[in-house]
Amino acid sequence: MNGSKKDSIRKYKLTYFDIRGRGEIPRLLFHAAEVEFTDDRIDSEEKWYNSLKAKMPQRVLPVLEVDGKLLSQSLTICRYLAREFGLCGKTSWEQALVEQVVDTMDDLRAEVAKWIYEKDTEKKDEIGSHLRSEIYPKFFGILEDILKENEENNNRSGYLVGDSLTLADLSVFETFTFPLSIHPDILDDHLELQEHRKRIETHKHLADYIKNRPVRPV
Amino acid sequence: MNGSKKDSIRKYKLTYFDIRGRGEIPRLLFHAAEVEFTDDRIDSEEKWYNSLKAKMPQRVLPVLEVDGKLLSQSLTICRYLAREFGLCGKTSWEQALVEQVVDTMDDLRAEVAKWIYEKDTEKKDEIGSHLRSEIYPKFFGILEDILKENEENNNRSGYLVGDSLTLADLSVFETFTFPLSIHPDILDDHLELQEHRKRIETHKHLADYIKNRPVRPV
Repeated sequence: MNGSKKDSIRKYKLTYFDIRGRGEIPRLLFHAAEVEFTDDRIDSEEKWYNSLKAKMPQRVLPVLEVDGKLLSQSLTICRYLAREFGLCGKTSWEQALVEQVVDTMDDLRAEVAKWIYEKDTEKKDEIGSHLRSEIYPKFFGILEDILKENEENNNRSGYLVGDSLTLADLSVFETFTFPLSIHPDILDDHLELQEHRKRIETHKHLADYIKNRPVRPV
Repeated sequence: MNGSKKDSIRKYKLTYFDIRGRGEIPRLLFHAAEVEFTDDRIDSEEKWYNSLKAKMPQRVLPVLEVDGKLLSQSLTICRYLAREFGLCGKTSWEQALVEQVVDTMDDLRAEVAKWIYEKDTEKKDEIGSHLRSEIYPKFFGILEDILKENEENNNRSGYLVGDSLTLADLSVFETFTFPLSIHPDILDDHLELQEHRKRIETHKHLADYIKNRPVRPV
């Protein structure tokens, strides 16, 4: 029932601010699938508030435009694109495993956001310590279990679900990018997660984009 | 690629605490689809902490067990069941529209949770006022737009996506239940949303369950 018809003449536009944020996983999906899209990066607050915001279905970005139809909600956009591009698992159960990882990374993202938005220096340090001592280890453990389980199911691909790249891998890659920028050593004792990260970074459809994409703090 | 094989001899168990919380939308899905499942309600903290927690993949509930395999993340569980039961739209785009509503309701849920978890009476009142003056109207507006757009696409079904009940409708129904318990008048000026709510409440597969289910505050 889903996404089996891959229609290459579809016109896609992704509208988002000029940061990685909640737009980067969709961008990675387009590149991984080698599907053309308009990467509409809004870099003027004036443009957003005065002309664009009122036209967006939920008054927020990112918004995906598909042949003129609009879709909100970043994770919904990710899953839709992943289904269309065959990057969402090969069965409904694999799709569930992919989505489970994506939702888990969204939980991690919410934890990291507490650090980003905290203004008080002392509290920010506390949140940083908590991330290092509790939060990162918890999520690393979950992902290591998933990698191990996938390997035990005879998928020695090194990907998180099944035997090829999926949205799950892109989600983990992007969600770790910011934490690694503030805590560069967090993967030092996690060789499998390092290798997983390198696998995405050097993927034949992604390496060029990741190397040359606009550098943004978040 | 998804969920077309509806296998009625599958064994489903949903393990969650004895509240609606993040377990109720999955429960509503089972009832809407008339699919048998074990509704495993954990009502003892001792049982959870001492014997169950360590066995759960992410040490949290709900967990869905499908023929012995475990799945975490409540929204992933909802989407998986909805796909299996044909309650997730008829095309990949409809599925995206369904998921967009579900993610939007999760945003509303997060706003309402701020009220639930606030201990300070004064701050709680402030959050309550903000919910009434800003948050509810924003989300009601989004849903009214979606209902209207679906009607303009010739679906006079009164459901949110396409011409029949989907996960989107169940998600809205459940997400409003708690706000209506603390602010019973919020739908007074929103006739279409009232009618939508009644449509779910009186649905032939749901009416009995909703009338007779365990009454829980959340």
